[in-house]
Amino acid sequence: MGIPGKDPALSAIHVSIDFDRRLWREDLDGSRAHVRMLGERGVLAPEEVQTILAGLDRVAAEIEAGTFPWREAYEDVHLNIERRLTELVGPVGGKLHTGRSRNDQVATDLRLWTVRRLAELDREVAALGTQLLAQAHAAFERRTVLPFYTHLQRAQPVLLAHHLLAHLEALGRDRERLAAARERAAECPLGAGAGAGSGFPVDPARSAELLGFRRACRNSLDAVSARDFALETLAALSILMVHLSRLAEELILWSSQEFGFVTLGDAVTTGSSIMPQKRNPDGAELVRGKTGRVFGALQALLVANKALPLAYNKDLQEDKEALFDAVDTARLSLRVLTASLREAHFHDERMREAAEARAGYANATELADYLAARGMPFREAHAAVRALVEQARAEGKRLQDLGLERLRAISPVVDDDVLACLETEAALARRAAPMGTAPERVREALAEARARWSDGD
Amino acid sequence: MGIPGKDPALSAIHVSIDFDRRLWREDLDGSRAHVRMLGERGVLAPEEVQTILAGLDRVAAEIEAGTFPWREAYEDVHLNIERRLTELVGPVGGKLHTGRSRNDQVATDLRLWTVRRLAELDREVAALGTQLLAQAHAAFERRTVLPFYTHLQRAQPVLLAHHLLAHLEALGRDRERLAAARERAAECPLGAGAGAGSGFPVDPARSAELLGFRRACRNSLDAVSARDFALETLAALSILMVHLSRLAEELILWSSQEFGFVTLGDAVTTGSSIMPQKRNPDGAELVRGKTGRVFGALQALLVANKALPLAYNKDLQEDKEALFDAVDTARLSLRVLTASLREAHFHDERMREAAEARAGYANATELADYLAARGMPFREAHAAVRALVEQARAEGKRLQDLGLERLRAISPVVDDDVLACLETEAALARRAAPMGTAPERVREALAEARARWSDGD
Amino acid sequence: MGIPGKDPALSAIHVSIDFDRRLWREDLDGSRAHVRMLGERGVLAPEEVQTILAGLDRVAAEIEAGTFPWREAYEDVHLNIERRLTELVGPVGGKLHTGRSRNDQVATDLRLWTVRRLAELDREVAALGTQLLAQAHAAFERRTVLPFYTHLQRAQPVLLAHHLLAHLEALGRDRERLAAARERAAECPLGAGAGAGSGFPVDPARSAELLGFRRACRNSLDAVSARDFALETLAALSILMVHLSRLAEELILWSSQEFGFVTLGDAVTTGSSIMPQKRNPDGAELVRGKTGRVFGALQALLVANKALPLAYNKDLQEDKEALFDAVDTARLSLRVLTASLREAHFHDERMREAAEARAGYANATELADYLAARGMPFREAHAAVRALVEQARAEGKRLQDLGLERLRAISPVVDDDVLACLETEAALARRAAPMGTAPERVREALAEARARWSDGD
Amino acid sequence: MGIPGKDPALSAIHVSIDFDRRLWREDLDGSRAHVRMLGERGVLAPEEVQTILAGLDRVAAEIEAGTFPWREAYEDVHLNIERRLTELVGPVGGKLHTGRSRNDQVATDLRLWTVRRLAELDREVAALGTQLLAQAHAAFERRTVLPFYTHLQRAQPVLLAHHLLAHLEALGRDRERLAAARERAAECPLGAGAGAGSGFPVDPARSAELLGFRRACRNSLDAVSARDFALETLAALSILMVHLSRLAEELILWSSQEFGFVTLGDAVTTGSSIMPQKRNPDGAELVRGKTGRVFGALQALLVANKALPLAYNKDLQEDKEALFDAVDTARLSLRVLTASLREAHFHDERMREAAEARAGYANATELADYLAARGMPFREAHAAVRALVEQARAEGKRLQDLGLERLRAISPVVDDDVLACLETEAALARRAAPMGTAPERVREALAEARARWSDGD
Repeated sequence: MGIPGKDPALSAIHVSIDFDRRLWREDLDGSRAHVRMLGERGVLAPEEVQTILAGLDRVAAEIEAGTFPWREAYEDVHLNIERRLTELVGPVGGKLHTGRSRNDQVATDLRLWTVRRLAELDREVAALGTQLLAQAHAAFERRTVLPFYTHLQRAQPVLLAHHLLAHLEALGRDRERLAAARERAAECPLGAGAGAGSGFPVDPARSAELLGFRRACRNSLDAVSARDFALETLAALSILMVHLSRLAEELILWSSQEFGFVTLGDAVTTGSSIMPQKRNPDGAELVRGKTGRVFGALQALLVANKALPLAYNKDLQEDKEALFDAVDTARLSLRVLTASLREAHFHDERMREAAEARAGYANATELADYLAARGMPFREAHAAVRALVEQARAEGKRLQDLGLERLRAISPVVDDDVLACLETEAALARRAAPMGTAPERVREALAEARARWSDGD
Repeated sequence: MGIPGKDPALSAIHVSIDFDRRLWREDLDGSRAHVRMLGERGVLAPEEVQTILAGLDRVAAEIEAGTFPWREAYEDVHLNIERRLTELVGPVGGKLHTGRSRNDQVATDLRLWTVRRLAELDREVAALGTQLLAQAHAAFERRTVLPFYTHLQRAQPVLLAHHLLAHLEALGRDRERLAAARERAAECPLGAGAGAGSGFPVDPARSAELLGFRRACRNSLDAVSARDFALETLAALSILMVHLSRLAEELILWSSQEFGFVTLGDAVTTGSSIMPQKRNPDGAELVRGKTGRVFGALQALLVANKALPLAYNKDLQEDKEALFDAVDTARLSLRVLTASLREAHFHDERMREAAEARAGYANATELADYLAARGMPFREAHAAVRALVEQARAEGKRLQDLGLERLRAISPVVDDDVLACLETEAALARRAAPMGTAPERVREALAEARARWSDGD
Repeated sequence: MGIPGKDPALSAIHVSIDFDRRLWREDLDGSRAHVRMLGERGVLAPEEVQTILAGLDRVAAEIEAGTFPWREAYEDVHLNIERRLTELVGPVGGKLHTGRSRNDQVATDLRLWTVRRLAELDREVAALGTQLLAQAHAAFERRTVLPFYTHLQRAQPVLLAHHLLAHLEALGRDRERLAAARERAAECPLGAGAGAGSGFPVDPARSAELLGFRRACRNSLDAVSARDFALETLAALSILMVHLSRLAEELILWSSQEFGFVTLGDAVTTGSSIMPQKRNPDGAELVRGKTGRVFGALQALLVANKALPLAYNKDLQEDKEALFDAVDTARLSLRVLTASLREAHFHDERMREAAEARAGYANATELADYLAARGMPFREAHAAVRALVEQARAEGKRLQDLGLERLRAISPVVDDDVLACLETEAALARRAAPMGTAPERVREALAEARARWSDGD
Repeated sequence: MGIPGKDPALSAIHVSIDFDRRLWREDLDGSRAHVRMLGERGVLAPEEVQTILAGLDRVAAEIEAGTFPWREAYEDVHLNIERRLTELVGPVGGKLHTGRSRNDQVATDLRLWTVRRLAELDREVAALGTQLLAQAHAAFERRTVLPFYTHLQRAQPVLLAHHLLAHLEALGRDRERLAAARERAAECPLGAGAGAGSGFPVDPARSAELLGFRRACRNSLDAVSARDFALETLAALSILMVHLSRLAEELILWSSQEFGFVTLGDAVTTGSSIMPQKRNPDGAELVRGKTGRVFGALQALLVANKALPLAYNKDLQEDKEALFDAVDTARLSLRVLTASLREAHFHDERMREAAEARAGYANATELADYLAARGMPFREAHAAVRALVEQARAEGKRLQDLGLERLRAISPVVDDDVLACLETEAALARRAAPMGTAPERVREALAEARARWSDGD
């Protein structure tokens, strides 16, 4: 506990109650565990423990009822609660802080908050994944086809279900990263004191257990000065936002009049005051725009931690707002995209049109593969097809419109079945190796993903 | 004006009234200028103009009195004010938006806000500079000497005044950058409409003039989509924070027991609840820690703007919070350092001790320069002095304690005056070329800086 | 000059000759100016000056001929040149370093390099602007129309020339920022010595003049420790890259099959080995992708400078690679976009189609403006038009197809001229206020831009 | 494989052979696995497989011998190798690319490179940890005591071994993060083709197995477009650099004359050309300075990936240089710090002095704890001690010098044993709870760490 100087600028830069108030549940839970442990170790008498616990319950009730007297003069959430406790239960309240320091208390609160929020965020990612799966399943039933793009140029036809599952894969890895960050955040600093360890017979393992952490920290100086759990969390959220921004970008592109692949529902778009058909994809745009904000929070905290000598430095106070904002942003972004997908109406015909449009020659690769599969060296096959496409293009025709004869003229390996290979459905079916977009593969992938996601959820 | 969808997540990500409320003065001023211009151009009748202006005054009065009915349902500050205006003055309030769109209005408000805040920040930088100058002047009067450091190793003695003026130079360039950002922000987008320009006979130059901008924008699409004024502001603030963090770092280092160069006043430090002599430099640490936060805001907005097609995209809504937070942070940091310097008590003896301590051989360079000035090639002089220092070190002596004879043995160019050159005051005096730390130079630099800073302020 | 330790890891992290070799011209020019100034001040004899200058010319010749013996053992470009000089001209070469230290030398070289590169980059931006102007002029001659987009939704018709001029405006501000960075970089640190100033009668103002700087630095400690000129340069380049990435994004979008607004030439796209019509906009994509790289360089150097105590710290060695890479990236990006625009073929019909497509009701705003101009409160006009558009949409009609009668039914203010206002050309013509897209305005804007850009170039 | 356009700027921005050449081993290994798998699946004949494998061996031999003809015209490492293969073995070389595309090949190579480098980096972190452990063990044997710092103010005495183990804990978590990144990088994209999957009967699981990946990717579009493995790697390296920068900062601070806690060896410092005793901690400074560089690489790649629509976009080419540079920087930084610690000589007396200096009253907390342990409410104990310290300070005395009587006057709970609790060794011994700095705890922690680190290595 510090005694802040009186210069108004110092007070203004120092006071954190406006934002760290969010930690009140974690602060109370941390105090409950600490006081219970002190009781078990005989540092506090049973009735002292009971009095303090009852006082903490009253504090909780006041906060929930909105009657708690938050005071700026007490700088932060911790001192506000501590002082209120003593007002409510008398001097014994002062014993709550026995064997604890602000340094280990603050670190415990923020870690506990992080662990809990990461668990919630995992559920939000799961909800978005479930929505993706539902749309993928429906799109598979309709066998919706679209071209996938490289360089934003149409490449080859794929199933929309296959495309949506690609996003799901990325989200699956995001959940792994969130879980890993949660795991490493779940080490309990309580018992580290100001940094040298506690002079009281505290039991950090027990405190950790009471709070649901997986273990206590191992070194007191590390316990009060480490913020890599926050950095790892912000990194995982930044990567998650990369994935959300990619999905958002596609929703924006696809709902443009030029693509016309999707109509987003009224509930998730912003209309024009004058053009009723207008549906601005504001939600998706904000997800995309807020991606930079999470990167910025990561950057801010990396910079704040850089080159800090051990152990506690006041710079570390910056950890809270960065984390709070990034977690809020990620949660909101997940919800916006979940709602957007739920209300998305895909235009199957526009997608198929794009996949089969003459302009694309998306089936040229099929022909080359056909030749290669029959023994022509791959590079030769490419050259031959390129020449043919050039002719077709000059004549304004599709490859299949050139006729069997001209196709057979390429090489003796070409058979009558060549025409079939140029059809969209044939192209899809040919991508039948694992990972591929062939309907049988996508059916399996859907089943496998459903199993994995219902498990994980 | 958009009509947001009803999904709660969309509303939550979309509503900006919580933070853009800060723009209310600028929004009202923008509206006043717009309605006056419309009156002058005959688009609105004089009595319409009067009614709307009176209504805007009532809105201002309500906001200042805290009685304004802010409503989340109206999303942002602009619609809140517009709707309230119509409630207060009737349907004519609807004419305020004639020839204007939300896109040019929003851009105007934020530019106006930025121009005003940059002017205020300039005064805060000036205040810090004035404090630096005052301390530099006082330190010069005391002829306080300390070593300057390279690699955090003591290098050569300099006047503390000279050291403080180095920080002043950096701040001077920061003011230039803030002024340049202000200049480029002061271009008025009003009249750009949604992006294609206005269909009404608006007079952008007149709107610009009424608002104190230096000119109107030149292209309507650029006017609504450009945010480089915000990026440039954030960049200037980031560089300013680099300079503040360097000053903060020195205050932290110098107030450690190891350096002991400065005691920061009670008003700007945080005490310990148990050790009355303890003065934690929390203010300086927070300035240092918050540096990353401003970098993060810059990064966030750079990322949000990257690769956005023209013209308006909702991503741009992210400009406000980044700017608000960075401006607040810079202002607070400036004030904290100004207060810290005002209350700083420098320990002249500790500084001089550090400058003259035997460990340093800070005068070895003087001897080498002495030799070079008498015609010895510089590299040779270096080698000779290095050998001598090695001997002195082995004997645990200062260079001057080796005696004139051994010094003269180096080379025939060495004269009796060599001993004098080894004294701290002589070392200072020798740095008499422009830029240098010689007292006469520093006296001039102080006078010149005072002239420049009182001018600029 | 330091003597590096022998641990291989230290050598590897320390040696900079691989990248700072690029500074050789600036290092030689800095040395020439320094030695001339020393001669003028009588510190060196005329023949010493001549010998050293001749030696520096021989060094330059060797480097240009590729015969210069670069040696890793001499760590950096400065020592390599200095040692070679002494090999070529004998011990007098050692006098070159009189009154100079590595600290002021390094800072001078990098500032000189920056000033020169910024001048070159300005010419590259001018070249891109000239190309934009040429395309804008041609598009104006053809009166090419496209919709501008908000939220990537079609908004209202504008002239393509108007759209291209929006990008030009942004580039104009970039040139101002590059010029400002150049101005502030052009302060000469030579004479600061290691940090305390020089003990020799050097003349920093003269050195500055000989090197084309606008003035000498004012404070020796600031001179060797300030890197804000590099930060400001990286910030200006980051903002420039934002603008280039926006242009690149449009080229990528517009060259997709879905938009079909532009065909980029063979010279600036990458073809497919199999589909001759394929034109991947690799150049534009790389510009977009490399934008993050310049942001990263800015962040890297901000972070390296944060909280460094005065004066020189080895961390500052990081300034070079960040600057080199960002300057190279910006230059290449400018050239790629200049070439892309030069070879761009715009598809006027596709653009006009997009501007007039029934789906858009891009003329609904025109009707609302028409009503407002005739005295209907703006918000009422909006509501009325919205109702009408809803009807038209239900009937699958354009607004003009609803017939005069139904239009007049909206309000008595509607006249026979209402139909005309719904045509694209009329919509363009109505945006006749300054900044707007009306042909007469765009003609003026083109003329004005041409004057400004030929001036500035 | 793309056919790049001929504009020189496009070529310059496009060609990657200068930097992706580093992937040659991975490219060859990927090709070997692919061709073996094709043989096993009957796509290639056994003799074709043998010919190609022999050819790849010849390519490897040429590269290792430095005789390989790298050609800029072939843009990248992949095409250079492929073309050379065909030159060496004839047209059958063209069959190597059967069932593979540049998109899955590039992703495979970079993942393989990342997996291998992460394994190497883990060994480098282990080496640094081992060095920390060795120094901690030695410091424990000497029972070296120093104060730990909060706010860079002396706080309480701790064992140096305890302090060093705090850094070790952070490195342990870094290894976990590197391992997690390696795990997620080890998914094999080979078989994804251009993005839709392969039309040949490839066996991705077998390719994965041959390359030592833990499994194949699950979705072809995800396989070619995902770069989160690179982002996660850069994030783990950024956090590692935070930890290295904190250790570096302490080495810099501690080797200043003001602290005097450590002398770094000649091999890892840079000397002055003139002052033989000077040891600039250049290595540690460069580690600190290069921290920003790794943050910058992370930001650069986050930005490049943001909002990219699926699947492959040329922007992704930016992944390589960012990864290469960050891995090189981290490796070098680890080695520099390992060498620095190996050669560090700690000054035990200076450290103990700092821990016991009168100025600190570092034992005030002990007294407060003593009172609290005897039943005084913690806050009351604090107030009493604060008053006593104020007196001691006024009298210029240490607490123990005030005499037993005055100590007992505080409260009846004070006993004769109070004086003992004020000694440094007693203070250390009292921190005997888990995590704490009591010698018995630190002995256990050392043993535990040794077991863990020899295991993990």
